[in-house]
Amino acid sequence: MTRKIRLGAFLPGGGQHIASWRHPDQPADGATNFEFHKQLALTAERGLFDAYFLADGLATSFGGTSEGGSARIAGFEPVTLFAALAPLTRHLGFIATASTTYEEPYNTARKFASLDLISGGRAGWNVVTTATEAAARNFNLDRQHPHAFRYARAQEHIEVVKALWDSFEDDVFIRDKESGEFFDRTKLHRTNHHGAHFKVEGPLNVPRSPQGHPIVVQAGQSDDGRNLAAATAEVVFTAHQHLHTAQEFYRDIKARAVGHGRDPNHILIMPGVSPFVGRTEEEAREKYERLTSLILEKDGVSLLNGLTGGTLDLTGYDLDGPLPPAPPTEGMKSRQALIRQIADENNFTIRQLYQWVASARGHFTIIGSAVQVADTLQEWFENEGADGFNILPPWLPTGLDDFIDLVVPELQRRGLFRTAYEGRTLRENLGLPFPQNRWAARAAHLAAAE
Amino acid sequence: MTRKIRLGAFLPGGGQHIASWRHPDQPADGATNFEFHKQLALTAERGLFDAYFLADGLATSFGGTSEGGSARIAGFEPVTLFAALAPLTRHLGFIATASTTYEEPYNTARKFASLDLISGGRAGWNVVTTATEAAARNFNLDRQHPHAFRYARAQEHIEVVKALWDSFEDDVFIRDKESGEFFDRTKLHRTNHHGAHFKVEGPLNVPRSPQGHPIVVQAGQSDDGRNLAAATAEVVFTAHQHLHTAQEFYRDIKARAVGHGRDPNHILIMPGVSPFVGRTEEEAREKYERLTSLILEKDGVSLLNGLTGGTLDLTGYDLDGPLPPAPPTEGMKSRQALIRQIADENNFTIRQLYQWVASARGHFTIIGSAVQVADTLQEWFENEGADGFNILPPWLPTGLDDFIDLVVPELQRRGLFRTAYEGRTLRENLGLPFPQNRWAARAAHLAAAE
Repeated sequence: MTRKIRLGAFLPGGGQHIASWRHPDQPADGATNFEFHKQLALTAERGLFDAYFLADGLATSFGGTSEGGSARIAGFEPVTLFAALAPLTRHLGFIATASTTYEEPYNTARKFASLDLISGGRAGWNVVTTATEAAARNFNLDRQHPHAFRYARAQEHIEVVKALWDSFEDDVFIRDKESGEFFDRTKLHRTNHHGAHFKVEGPLNVPRSPQGHPIVVQAGQSDDGRNLAAATAEVVFTAHQHLHTAQEFYRDIKARAVGHGRDPNHILIMPGVSPFVGRTEEEAREKYERLTSLILEKDGVSLLNGLTGGTLDLTGYDLDGPLPPAPPTEGMKSRQALIRQIADENNFTIRQLYQWVASARGHFTIIGSAVQVADTLQEWFENEGADGFNILPPWLPTGLDDFIDLVVPELQRRGLFRTAYEGRTLRENLGLPFPQNRWAARAAHLAAAE
Repeated sequence: MTRKIRLGAFLPGGGQHIASWRHPDQPADGATNFEFHKQLALTAERGLFDAYFLADGLATSFGGTSEGGSARIAGFEPVTLFAALAPLTRHLGFIATASTTYEEPYNTARKFASLDLISGGRAGWNVVTTATEAAARNFNLDRQHPHAFRYARAQEHIEVVKALWDSFEDDVFIRDKESGEFFDRTKLHRTNHHGAHFKVEGPLNVPRSPQGHPIVVQAGQSDDGRNLAAATAEVVFTAHQHLHTAQEFYRDIKARAVGHGRDPNHILIMPGVSPFVGRTEEEAREKYERLTSLILEKDGVSLLNGLTGGTLDLTGYDLDGPLPPAPPTEGMKSRQALIRQIADENNFTIRQLYQWVASARGHFTIIGSAVQVADTLQEWFENEGADGFNILPPWLPTGLDDFIDLVVPELQRRGLFRTAYEGRTLRENLGLPFPQNRWAARAAHLAAAE
């Protein structure tokens, strides 16, 4: 089978670009409008996307201490939302973000296994450690845990969740009405985890789900983050401005995965891309300019503050002057560095910087015709920059429709993207292998050794 | 408006009676079959039920230490399941159980507010403290916290959740595309809770939901439990074998609610009822005998052990002899006492006891014609025994269909039950008042004082 581009769609109902809610096409209440999210899911499925992806935070952007995109001040908890969208769709995967720092593995394992059951095998878990001070203050803390602590806890959290997902072997259920035997007790297993952060006996009270394990997604960029992704993730979401940094990241993650004894084809690298697509480059540029013109200064400044960890106070600085240095933070280290890099490389003023990152917060923005956008995606895909892309339409629903109506057919013409869903599950569509249950694997190994 | 009977439906896909999965009508895989849960929701809505209710535990019944109903060994996390069912229904409420002991209030508040948004105001939260040792061992503990600790934490947890639900005033959103003002910052509020168990700054990142607050449900029977229910709950679920104990409970809870400054009509008492209904009493009795004949001895014994807190070892006892005493437990104190009471009052052997509690685990079992069942419900409803009932059909889907096809029309003929849904939300259907946002109330109070 020829290698195909994988596509995820980042579709926050409030829009990606911080001014998108002011765009005439976008419902101003999109963030909390269930019918709008349903429309987006159906559209993504029409475009044959692999998955609908939602980020998540555990605090409200409030009081100018975080992103200025105030349309995103409130929304749905993603797993609850995706559970509601699953029965309304047939093929689309659902990748929801959940925190390893502020949830317990038993609860995490349950909700994703339930989503996987409900959707018939279309669930993914985007693992985050939740890097904001505001979130810490919603969970009994005065300050958040250090970066290293969060990553150590994350690694153990994932380990426990995966073990819990294997509690029931796939053929555990007998369900013989005649004899009254419901399940085979030898195929139900305790987890018995005792670690530095968690003690979990198990078993989980949700059976093994259609995908075996829901897809594990990660977006770590720091050294800790890359190690975690290489060890545990099947999809890696990442932000790059240039092919060469994407390639460095791609090769590094694949090499680290091999170091963990993994097949590098079983970990897909999917950079974020924010496309402004027109029938011509000029039309695309007009779309970009239109959204840019809707940004309020205070929202732009607040966005930069949020993206640099909430520590950058721009009060009193000339917006048409350079970006001042920001103090270090325990959260979002790599995002902070990326924003700085964009400013330096382009010699941007504060205003130019927030205008540029307003659409994709550091992800790659492409402005061009369908052919130009497809050219760039193809270049990255064929040169170890990407296995696929997470598309972040700058505004909704039109930004998504543009990509589907203009770019998807171009990619299909080039043989780079599917013309129909191949599999029943997200895992099958992504071309990722079904994880054998650890207990069944052990039993098979012991039987072979006898 | 005449007072009407409120009806909830307890519909675990695996069935209520421990042998129900062996019944020819019930899908053996019902507990983990999403399509079956969809069918049950649509059926409950056809019967004009107020709500679909699901219990929940945070551990698997395993190794004979808990209920023998092995068809319930695994199932869906209830909020995830109900989110998926909400868009497939229009009127039915969804009351999901969630634990105050093993979840954080910020997460609890989010998922129920999200479910309320998705369903257009049909969410309820059944508050439990999760009283099993097995659950404790899934959440980093060796033994569960004492009863008093769990209830103190529950009270504070509910307090924080309700405060978080008020983070956004109902008219906070401006969403003026022209000016770029998305919300009115003076109508978004921090929670700033500092208590013995939680420190939560807020605000929540989900807006106030259609019901203002999702319905809060409680089932505490102990003194702590009754106080918590009287102070915080809007619906109370309870288990009684006799009208006189139901009346004692009903009057006690209403009196305690008045003691908390509440209107006693704003807290609805809904005992559980497990109905075997036939066109004649004889037909009903045949249905009961048929299910009873499907109980395996080992499952019956394991059920009793589970219902008495997992501390009652019946190994070596004659099943046709009396129930031995059980040691005290930190969990399920009131359920343990109820089981003992049933055994003593009826002079039951161990076998007779498990046969009797197999269908409803201590809830009231009624075997009779539609007229007889309606007579009993009417008697309780009109004599301070109940404001409504939680119906626990012993097996599914037929046990639910029987109630809807036979008993509901009889109640409607008597003017005791609705003939169509009255309201848009669960709260409206239950006749419960919309809770004013605490901040709006305070502002109104201050304005009036000026």
